[in-house]
Order: sequence, then C-alpha cells, then structure tokens
Amino acid sequence: MSKTRQTQATAAMLAIGDELLSGRTKDKNIGHFAEVMTLSGIDLKEVRIVADEEDAIVEAINALRARYDFVVTSGGIGPTHDDITADAVGTAFGLEVTEHPEAVELLETYYAGRDLDFTPARRRMTRTPVGATLIPNAVSKAPGFSVENVHVMAGVPNVFQAMLDALLPTLPAGAPLISKAIPCPYGEGDIGDPLRDIAKRHDGVSIGSYPRFAEGRYSTEIIIRSRDEAAIEAAATEVEAMLDSLASR
Amino acid sequence: MSKTRQTQATAAMLAIGDELLSGRTKDKNIGHFAEVMTLSGIDLKEVRIVADEEDAIVEAINALRARYDFVVTSGGIGPTHDDITADAVGTAFGLEVTEHPEAVELLETYYAGRDLDFTPARRRMTRTPVGATLIPNAVSKAPGFSVENVHVMAGVPNVFQAMLDALLPTLPAGAPLISKAIPCPYGEGDIGDPLRDIAKRHDGVSIGSYPRFAEGRYSTEIIIRSRDEAAIEAAATEVEAMLDSLASR
Repeated sequence: MSKTRQTQATAAMLAIGDELLSGRTKDKNIGHFAEVMTLSGIDLKEVRIVADEEDAIVEAINALRARYDFVVTSGGIGPTHDDITADAVGTAFGLEVTEHPEAVELLETYYAGRDLDFTPARRRMTRTPVGATLIPNAVSKAPGFSVENVHVMAGVPNVFQAMLDALLPTLPAGAPLISKAIPCPYGEGDIGDPLRDIAKRHDGVSIGSYPRFAEGRYSTEIIIRSRDEAAIEAAATEVEAMLDSLASR
Repeated sequence: MSKTRQTQATAAMLAIGDELLSGRTKDKNIGHFAEVMTLSGIDLKEVRIVADEEDAIVEAINALRARYDFVVTSGGIGPTHDDITADAVGTAFGLEVTEHPEAVELLETYYAGRDLDFTPARRRMTRTPVGATLIPNAVSKAPGFSVENVHVMAGVPNVFQAMLDALLPTLPAGAPLISKAIPCPYGEGDIGDPLRDIAKRHDGVSIGSYPRFAEGRYSTEIIIRSRDEAAIEAAATEVEAMLDSLASR
C-alpha cells in the first residue's frame, strides 16, 4: 500500500509536554505538520508524544533521528523550569548547551525595544546545543534551532507554524502525493470486499477508506493516493464502477 | 517534577492510521483518552501515531506493552483491506488470528436484525488473536478486544469513546491527581525565574506553566498538580504571593 512512498523523504514528529498527556491542552501542531508534509511531498511516518522528562525526550529523539530523514519537535523551549527540550537535545547529541550568541543578540534587541527586562528566564530561551542553527520566529522572536536532522520548535501553535514556514525551504522536498477523494454512501461493510480486490489489482496506488458514523449509519470516504495521476484515474474508474453496481443492486 | 506520579498505573496509547499522518483526519481520540486517564488517576506516559503498516504497528505495540501497565490502540479494526490491527496484534503476541465465536454470534444477530448481509468484509471485524476478550461497542456493535494488557479499539471517535467507557471499569485505577489552575497575566519570561525557585522548594508537586500568545502578548496559566491537596495549597500560596509582588512592581 505504501510502495509509492518509499523513495520520498521521511519525517517524524515529537510533541513534548505534560499538558498534552494530561488532556489539558489538545495538540494542534501534529495535524498542521501532517498537512504541510503531505503538501510538500514528504512522508510523515511516525509521531510520538512524551512528557517533560529528560530521559523520555532523549530516548525518543535518538530513536526517531536514526530512523527517519529528519525530526521536528514541538514544545519545551520557553523560559520556565519545565522547558527542558534544549538540554534534552544536547544530551541526545552529546553536545554542551550554552547561550547561542545570535539568539542573545536577537532577544537583547527585541526586549530592549519593548522596554522589557532581559531576565535570566528570558535568557534561557537563547540556550541551544553548541553549533546549532537558529530557526527564525516571526511571531515572538525567541528562536527555534536545528542540530543535524533535528529541528526544535515551539509548542504554541502560531509560533510553531511560523517556525515551520521558516524551516520548510531547507527541508528535502519530494514529489507531492496526489490524492483523489470519492464520497461513498455505503459503510465499509458493503465496500470492504470489492475494495480489497481493486487494491490488489492496483499496486502503484494506496486506497484508503475512512468511515463516518452519523445519524445511526455509516458512510465512507474513499481516498486514492499516488504520485502517478494516471494510476489514480485507473483505480478511480474501477472504484466508481463498483459503487454504481452497488447502487443498482 | 513527576515524583508524585511514580506509583500510579501507567498507560500508553497507539493511534493507527495513514489518514492521521497525512493530515487528512485530525485525531480526536488522543485528547479524549488523555482527559479520561487524568480523571481516572492513571498516568498517560506516551502516545505514538503510526501508519497502517504491520511492521510499524507490531514494533510500537511490543515497545509500549513492555514498558507501561497497559496500552490502548485506536484505528484499523474495520472491515476493509487496510484494517490490519488485529493481524498486527496477533503477530506482536505470536498468536493466531481467527474469527472470535462471540463476535460472530453478535454480528450475525446484529446484521440479520437490520436486514444486512453478513459479508466476508463484515466477518473480518470478528477476527481477533486467539483467546482475546471482547470490548463491547454500544454504538455500532462490532467489538474491540483485549489481549493481555493491550486494548484494541476503533478509530471512529464516538465508537472509540463508547469502547473506552466499557473498558474503563476493568483498568487499574489510581488516586486521582488533583490540580489547581492559577491564571497569570504575565508571560513566562516574567515568571520563569521565581516559578523555578518555588518548584525547587516544593518537591511533592508538579508546577507547569502554559503560555498563550494572543493580541501580541503572552499570558500564562500556572497549573499545580499533586495527589496531596495540602501540598498544592502550600505551593499555590507562594505562587500567588509571587504574582502579587509582580503586580506591585
């Protein structure tokens, strides 16, 4: 089913924060990142959510960066004591974490211009593993950073999105996946068997079916994905013929 | 920070589905599960999202079930060819996957009562690893199932929620975490330093701060969590005094 994706760049995301695991905050970054990856032709393969605990963050970063082309993290880079992502990334790479000179200059100027003290807490947001590259933050200045293939970004959704916009041109691009949606008034129980047969005959495409349950009955959206438009059309023709034959039962 | 949680039961969740990683579907089950776990006094430690690929599902299930007291999965138990969770769970446990006799009886009766054919696709939804216990589905009947400490549930949110309601009484309960929210008109840059000092003095509680950025400025919600109400009050008194001193600056 995923054959068409194997030559695309692969990505993983690590969302960091106790508040996500307690249910207090509903994550909005994963869905956004997933959409942007699909539009960019990059294959998001795995997402993890872990607590603000250094061991858990280090382990997840090391597992994901070894396995996928790159990793994006969200959360834990603010100025409070529970913001430990920079330290965890340093530990994961065996790098010392220090104030990044460019980040210090950036925030010094920013806070001076707003008549705010550059407190030790705010200075915390300039800390990165040695040698990191900054990721600009168009919303509130305090930058994210990249170390090798790990890109560390904020958890606040509009800041995460701004950082991702800045990061995107530097990421490996792939041929975008094309998809075709076919609405289907039948539940998966009706279309499961014929759909499986069609999928077997069309190796170059991925055929997914996504059930909805509303007002006491199922309906389905059938999504055909490929990087080859002709292959999508060939499969779509068979799916539509199958739906027609169900309608005339 | 999480000392108070170590004796609680620990949980992990695995959300399964290409549609979550493509951004097409925004997951609603993780946030719901997280909230229910917090209310139940169970510590949700990790969430993963993987594609509809057997190897990825098997690996995640085996990693999570070994590490946490139990694992809940969502997605991939419908009647179509891309619903492979039952097979993956079978592989993870080294168990054969066959039609579960109780599930067959349940669905046979259900579809007969609705004048629907019990198609091979629908029969697929009766397949579980040998020896699995069914999880009732009050919404649309096709059941989830449990194998040891792994609980396999649907991805459709109202079905996931119904299955979780049924599963909940069988899960290990813990003493609920109590939390107190203190709204704070200052950004994390202002409160980061004093909050860290307070956190250092109060070992038995977890103090988190959750920034919001709206209309060009940050505000914060400070959350103090513990299983000990007196410990929360002691820390809250210090936090409130700290906010008062900032207000009178």
